[in-house]
Amino acid sequence: MYIVILAGGSGTRFWPLSRGKSPKQLMSILGGKSMLQRTVERVLPLAPKGIVVVTNAIQAAETAIQLELYQNDTNLHIVEEPEGRNTAPAIGLAAAFVSHLHPGALMVVLPADHYITDEEEFRRTIKRAVEPAQHGSLVTLGIVPTRPETGYGYIEVAPERNDAPPYPVRRFVEKPSQEKALEFLASGSFFWNSGMFVWRTDVILEQIKEHMPKLALALAALSIADDTGESSPLQLQIAKMYRSLTGESIDYAVMEKAANVVVIPGLFGWSDVGSWSALPEVIPHDAAGNVTINVREEINLDSSGCVVYGDGKLVALIGVSDLIVVNSGDAVLLCSMERAQDVKKIVEELHRRDLPDYL
Amino acid sequence: MYIVILAGGSGTRFWPLSRGKSPKQLMSILGGKSMLQRTVERVLPLAPKGIVVVTNAIQAAETAIQLELYQNDTNLHIVEEPEGRNTAPAIGLAAAFVSHLHPGALMVVLPADHYITDEEEFRRTIKRAVEPAQHGSLVTLGIVPTRPETGYGYIEVAPERNDAPPYPVRRFVEKPSQEKALEFLASGSFFWNSGMFVWRTDVILEQIKEHMPKLALALAALSIADDTGESSPLQLQIAKMYRSLTGESIDYAVMEKAANVVVIPGLFGWSDVGSWSALPEVIPHDAAGNVTINVREEINLDSSGCVVYGDGKLVALIGVSDLIVVNSGDAVLLCSMERAQDVKKIVEELHRRDLPDYL
Repeated sequence: MYIVILAGGSGTRFWPLSRGKSPKQLMSILGGKSMLQRTVERVLPLAPKGIVVVTNAIQAAETAIQLELYQNDTNLHIVEEPEGRNTAPAIGLAAAFVSHLHPGALMVVLPADHYITDEEEFRRTIKRAVEPAQHGSLVTLGIVPTRPETGYGYIEVAPERNDAPPYPVRRFVEKPSQEKALEFLASGSFFWNSGMFVWRTDVILEQIKEHMPKLALALAALSIADDTGESSPLQLQIAKMYRSLTGESIDYAVMEKAANVVVIPGLFGWSDVGSWSALPEVIPHDAAGNVTINVREEINLDSSGCVVYGDGKLVALIGVSDLIVVNSGDAVLLCSMERAQDVKKIVEELHRRDLPDYL
Repeated sequence: MYIVILAGGSGTRFWPLSRGKSPKQLMSILGGKSMLQRTVERVLPLAPKGIVVVTNAIQAAETAIQLELYQNDTNLHIVEEPEGRNTAPAIGLAAAFVSHLHPGALMVVLPADHYITDEEEFRRTIKRAVEPAQHGSLVTLGIVPTRPETGYGYIEVAPERNDAPPYPVRRFVEKPSQEKALEFLASGSFFWNSGMFVWRTDVILEQIKEHMPKLALALAALSIADDTGESSPLQLQIAKMYRSLTGESIDYAVMEKAANVVVIPGLFGWSDVGSWSALPEVIPHDAAGNVTINVREEINLDSSGCVVYGDGKLVALIGVSDLIVVNSGDAVLLCSMERAQDVKKIVEELHRRDLPDYL
């Protein structure tokens, strides 16, 4: 078994703390180790044959530094995309690379920036996926929903199912409305789409060939060697190949179209920590629901439901609620909790105004 | 005519921008000159015989630096209180000092931290007060109210008045409830108490003798010389005298009790800039009512009615309203607009927690 960690996210939704060179997965937003490091440590007990981390050019140096800690624990490979192209090219590249190391190997795909509470149960879930994956299924991990979340995509399975998992997937559903999300939760036949997959490299490469022939051709043309170092022949080939690739998600481009897609349900306490408003799920909060991070001193008069990143300062709150407050270096963000998804619009606006210092 | 400027305020309501050593009157909160400097420049066209600035020990050095600009324009005197004791001792001290310079001189008392829109009309109002003051009245400037403000004290005059001002004062009223403030505004016989006074030094000293005999005795015991420099004999006497004085406001201790108190109405655009929430009255705001100060770049998505002090940073607002947001050095304040008066509670809490670095 090889673990592929997708670590190339740009983390615009955690601006201004996350910037181009320090996206969420490389940050210590929860304190201590970064989310990438936590992801690596979480899978080491599975004793993988190797870990392949897919990152991109501007984050590669910091990624390598953070992974040094584990160089004696497993075979670590860093594959560098010149820039992000969503998940399909990254996964295709990783599959081709793992296939070179060990043709037909089992491959577990994990995002680098997710939070998991019960790591034992998480590993048990991965192990449950091994058998169906070895038999040729594309296994996706589906999180048992605990609330009518509108911020996640869903995976639907047949309602009439008596057997143990895996369950055949009926369809993938984009982020739903509140009403739909309530229906999904009540039905019992929907899972959150975690973006975590288990499959054989030859199976996913075959599916890419069928549904993304252009990507498959480009991957087949790569002359893969073990050396993935900066300016290595492989990296130069990848850089060239990416010029003609368009960004597509593996869900949309392959999973929704492929046959033999199954889901293994997981119930291990999961969050994709997709925005500032997700932090109260994963960081302890006070009695009034406030989460404060990197705050030197806090004085709170009648304030509740706030997420505060303090940049080492004293923070005083008076009569405010459901606010996101982030101080980070040269920038300050104030955002109502319900607008947390719009933080990426600030990043877009910074591009439009050509203010690269803040990106 | 002498001008007395009360410049010893501690400005706790503008924390964390204002701190012990940099209170509101010494700050450039409106951009450009400080409020003290603006106060001086506003009265120079009145060609006073001298300006006496009453400040306190920890602000004296910065006050002296800011006043250097005007040393060729008028006779400037700085009188230093060891620490603030509200307005009555400061005014008594200033009256004794002016009386030493010129017995029976006319004395105009002005706070150092008020904002005035129409400075010409302000000076005309002061001039209207001169004659009644010379005839022995204690003249207070009353601002014609423009809204049912609950943050100011009021001065009541008789409703049946046909004559031109000055009007005899019926009573001073503390900050009213919303209901009372509406009544006051509708009655037409209430003015805002501006804390600005015009009188003869001998008249106010006589009234202090009658209503604050202890303060009068202490003042009479001072051996006043022109030298008010640091560690001068006068300053040493003042330091000793203040040990036994309690703080009292001139309104409460003298004006409410004295006979012959009159009001001259003023309509020159006035604010005491008493808290962060007062800034939209005195600083231009955008179409959505946001005031931003010292902000390097601003990105605003659907936010309104906010006062933002940016400390030279980029500030991004998303879907927030009626918020006070202040970044200043090592501290951050988030406060709902309606709780602006409670900022001083943060300062109290900092004292309680013994965190002098933030004071």
